Amino acid sequence: MKKTVLIVYAHQSAGSFNAAAKNVALDVFSAPEYEVEVSDLYAMNFKATATAEDIIGDVKDSEHFRYAEETELALQAGKLSADITKEHGKLSQAELVIFQFPMYWFSFPAIMKGWIDRVLTKGYAFSEKKRYSQGVFKDKKAILSFTTGSQELMFGSNGINGDMNVTLWPMQNGILNYCGFQVLAPQIFWAPSRAPAELRTSMLEKWRVRLQGLLSEAPLSFTPLDCFDEEKGYVLKPELHNCQHSAPHFLSPDPGTVSFPHM
Amino acid sequence: MKKTVLIVYAHQSAGSFNAAAKNVALDVFSAPEYEVEVSDLYAMNFKATATAEDIIGDVKDSEHFRYAEETELALQAGKLSADITKEHGKLSQAELVIFQFPMYWFSFPAIMKGWIDRVLTKGYAFSEKKRYSQGVFKDKKAILSFTTGSQELMFGSNGINGDMNVTLWPMQNGILNYCGFQVLAPQIFWAPSRAPAELRTSMLEKWRVRLQGLLSEAPLSFTPLDCFDEEKGYVLKPELHNCQHSAPHFLSPDPGTVSFPHM
Repeated sequence: MKKTVLIVYAHQSAGSFNAAAKNVALDVFSAPEYEVEVSDLYAMNFKATATAEDIIGDVKDSEHFRYAEETELALQAGKLSADITKEHGKLSQAELVIFQFPMYWFSFPAIMKGWIDRVLTKGYAFSEKKRYSQGVFKDKKAILSFTTGSQELMFGSNGINGDMNVTLWPMQNGILNYCGFQVLAPQIFWAPSRAPAELRTSMLEKWRVRLQGLLSEAPLSFTPLDCFDEEKGYVLKPELHNCQHSAPHFLSPDPGTVSFPHM
Repeated sequence: MKKTVLIVYAHQSAGSFNAAAKNVALDVFSAPEYEVEVSDLYAMNFKATATAEDIIGDVKDSEHFRYAEETELALQAGKLSADITKEHGKLSQAELVIFQFPMYWFSFPAIMKGWIDRVLTKGYAFSEKKRYSQGVFKDKKAILSFTTGSQELMFGSNGINGDMNVTLWPMQNGILNYCGFQVLAPQIFWAPSRAPAELRTSMLEKWRVRLQGLLSEAPLSFTPLDCFDEEKGYVLKPELHNCQHSAPHFLSPDPGTVSFPHM
C-alpha cells in the first residue's frame, strides 16, 4: 500500500527557496513507495476568500450568510464548489500533509490561509464532537515547513519577535491539532534570503535527510481532549493542573523552555 | 482638527453581528469631531493574494519574484496597483484603525490577512530601521475587534484553546506593534452566535460606550526596541532579563497571568 503525501505550496516564483524546498519533497516522495500530490496555490490561482460563491446554487439564508453553516450544508448536499471538493479529495487520501510557505506577517500568506479557511470545512475537517485528540484527521500527520525573513535569535525566547513556539501556537494547535493531525516539529528555514548559497544548499540537504524519515517521527505532544472538562466549558481538569511533567506538552525538542515573550 | 478613523471590516453579510459592531463604530465616529472611512473588504471584492499583478508594468526579476522587494521598488516608482495605493491613502490619514472581523481558525479571515500582506508594504509600513517602538505608525492606534466561535473559558489560561493572549501575540505584536501602532486592548465578542438576542444587544451597547473613550485609552505595553541588543541579533539585553516586574509586559488587564498553554 503506497503512502500518499500532499504538499500545499504557496510561493509565486519557481526560482524561490520555497520552490526548491517543495521540489526536494517532491523528489523524495517520488520514490515508488509513495504517491505525491501538490496543490500549488498561486499557479492554481486558488481563491482565497470565503464567499457565497463557494456554494453551488442558493444559500440557506442570504440575508444573514454564515460561512461555516452554509458550507456544512452545501457539503451534505454535494453543493460545494468544485475547487474545494477537489482539495477535499486530495486531503482525504493523504497520510502526510506538508505546508510549504514563506512566513508572511507571523503567519501563513493569505492565499494559504484561504486554503485553510475554505478546505477545512465544518462537517468535513471537524465537528463539535470531533476536535483535537478526537479530531477527524487523527491518522494523518502534518508539518509546517517555512522560511522566515528574520534570523533565528529574533525568534528565541529572549528575541524581539518572541519565542517562535508562541507564534506557531495558533497554527499548530488551533488549526492542525484542532483537526486531529499528528503535528510534526516544524521545519524552519531561517532567513534563507540572507544566507550564502552554500548555506542554502546545506539547509535543503538537511531537509532531504529529514524527509526520508519524516513519516517515522514522533509528533509533538498536545494535552488530550479528555484532560479538559467538557461540562465546565473545556477547561483543564483541576487534578491535572500540576501534571505538566508527567504529561509533557511542548513544541520544541527542549521541553519547559517556552514562556510567554519577555515575561 | 478632526480625528480620522479607518475601519477595516471583513464579513460577507450585512445581517451579521460583525456588521452590527462595525455599524456601532460608524455611528459613534460620525460625530462632527471625526472623519470615518470603511474598507468593507468583501464588498470591495478585495484581492487577498500577493502577486506580481500588484505591480504596474514589469517587475525587476520575474524569474525570482520576491514580493516584499518588488512592491517596495514599485512603491518608490509609483507603480503599485491602484487598490493598494488607495488603502495607503486611507491608512496614512487614520489616527485609529479598527479591524472588525470574525476570528477564522485562530486568526484573521484570509481576505483580511490579504489586506495585511498587501497594504503593509515594505518601505511604507516598515523598514529595517523603522520597526516596533521605532515603527512608522507610532502616532496611530489600532485595535482588533472580533467575534469568536468558542466561549471565553476555552480561551482562558486553562482552556483547551490556550490563553487568548497567546493566540493574539502574532497579530498584536508581529503585525501591529511591529509597524509601531499603539495597540489597544482587543475587543472580544465571545460567541455571539450562541448568545441570546438580549446579550448580543448588551455586547454592542458596551462596545458603543467603549468606543466613545477609545482614543483616550492607554495602549498595551510591549518591550521597547532599545531593550534589545541589535548587534547580538535583537535579543533582550542581559541586564533586562529579570526586570519584567518593573517594566510590565502584558496583554490583559491582569499582568503576570499569561503563560504558555497548559505548561
